[in-house]
Amino acid sequence: MSPRSIDLTQVTEWLDGRARRVQDSLAGEEPLEIRVGDSPLAVTMRTPGHDLELAAGFLFTEGIIQRREQITSMEIATPQGAAQPGNLVVARLENSIQLDAEKTQRNFFANSSCGICGKASIEAVRSRFLRSPNSEFRLSANAICRLPENLGASQDIFSRTGGLHAAGLFTADGGLLVAREDIGRHNAVDKVIGWALREGRLPLAENILLVSGRCGFEIAQKAIAAGIPVVASVSAPSSLAVQLARELNLTLIGFLRGKRFVVYSCDERLILSGAG
Amino acid sequence: MSPRSIDLTQVTEWLDGRARRVQDSLAGEEPLEIRVGDSPLAVTMRTPGHDLELAAGFLFTEGIIQRREQITSMEIATPQGAAQPGNLVVARLENSIQLDAEKTQRNFFANSSCGICGKASIEAVRSRFLRSPNSEFRLSANAICRLPENLGASQDIFSRTGGLHAAGLFTADGGLLVAREDIGRHNAVDKVIGWALREGRLPLAENILLVSGRCGFEIAQKAIAAGIPVVASVSAPSSLAVQLARELNLTLIGFLRGKRFVVYSCDERLILSGAG
Repeated sequence: MSPRSIDLTQVTEWLDGRARRVQDSLAGEEPLEIRVGDSPLAVTMRTPGHDLELAAGFLFTEGIIQRREQITSMEIATPQGAAQPGNLVVARLENSIQLDAEKTQRNFFANSSCGICGKASIEAVRSRFLRSPNSEFRLSANAICRLPENLGASQDIFSRTGGLHAAGLFTADGGLLVAREDIGRHNAVDKVIGWALREGRLPLAENILLVSGRCGFEIAQKAIAAGIPVVASVSAPSSLAVQLARELNLTLIGFLRGKRFVVYSCDERLILSGAG
Repeated sequence: MSPRSIDLTQVTEWLDGRARRVQDSLAGEEPLEIRVGDSPLAVTMRTPGHDLELAAGFLFTEGIIQRREQITSMEIATPQGAAQPGNLVVARLENSIQLDAEKTQRNFFANSSCGICGKASIEAVRSRFLRSPNSEFRLSANAICRLPENLGASQDIFSRTGGLHAAGLFTADGGLLVAREDIGRHNAVDKVIGWALREGRLPLAENILLVSGRCGFEIAQKAIAAGIPVVASVSAPSSLAVQLARELNLTLIGFLRGKRFVVYSCDERLILSGAG
């Protein structure tokens, strides 16, 4: 945990007619700028910590790089005159990588000439990530039910602030590989995928991604980018996430709570004992 | 509610060892492109419905326009050849409005020469929105406790899908003025503020904004843009949202549940009976 992941502060707690001053822990939020060489690429509001993973994951899930080796160097920097240290990651990429500003600003924007729509968004993902999630992968319903508890046990910052999203990567039997927290849901996923990229573990053809919040289009897209066959969330998916998952062969699970979950796509990957 | 706010689909529900096919409602998610004249400005993943409000709110909270009159026309359009209708809002602005691409891409990015940091982000908000929230506004703790119930009663899509964020605008006595839902938290806030802009109600100097999720920097920034003196959320704020609120005189309330809440800044606006 970075020292800036949590901020301590004095607040007023109001409880049933009485107010008192108490100390509270806040989830850290600061902007991070990602540069490729001298070119600014993106600024994201994130919880400090694991910033190299976040930058690596962002470069990968946005389709700018396809392999770890394409990052020739990456470092946390402090610009001259900055009031806070860090908050800047400078990545240097192989010369062959072309930064397409229009594409990186918004992936599906490249399709705007034929009209922005859900279908165009899905086609953009299909054309950028040729890899399709592993269709041989299988996992049991019981393993799925264990995921939230295993993720919750590693949520350091959340348990102290109540203010963070979490993403976790699991093995087929429900064992936790890595968990990351962030004020931004997408950042938590990028940190997890960035970890896997830096560890040389991509594609994640035998793994499950669990996210703490809702699963929208962009979360499903990031999972597909990393070759993850199963994404689970404790809350609801969006219509477009389900459409994308069905078209690109991703198993999408929602409302995973206790002994219940809902499967939105590709349930052939699940071993559902007692199915009827 | 737009007909595309909700999608019906067949899913597999797994419950304690038994699987069955059921029908489920999904929160709609589709990309919306916002154009100013012929120039693409932004694409956001949003829940269809209230798209003109969303676009108007975005133009305002991003600091591109300051007054309703600066929008000379705004319409929902369908680009030639698009597979789905809508998903494009074309706004025409007064000639005097200059689109600063760098600024609109990321507001605080303009400060990157002196280093991206929380302080620079706060200064960027201060310089863009000269208006400071109404320091005379007062409201009671009891009115605050009523907000979540009043918002919940109007969450049509959430109650059917479980998959949306909500934002509501309230009067000082806790009465609901308007509520909007969206897959994106920021969009729900932009829809509410866009509604107020189009109704000629800005600045919202006597109103309270309630958001269903966490309150990060960008939510606080949008509230300040609209002149809202009090922002409440049912969950945690981030460190940078609290810093911003303290420096720019916004009352920030978190963890608003039942008869309890936490005040992070400017508690002089609250009438806390029994304070001790």
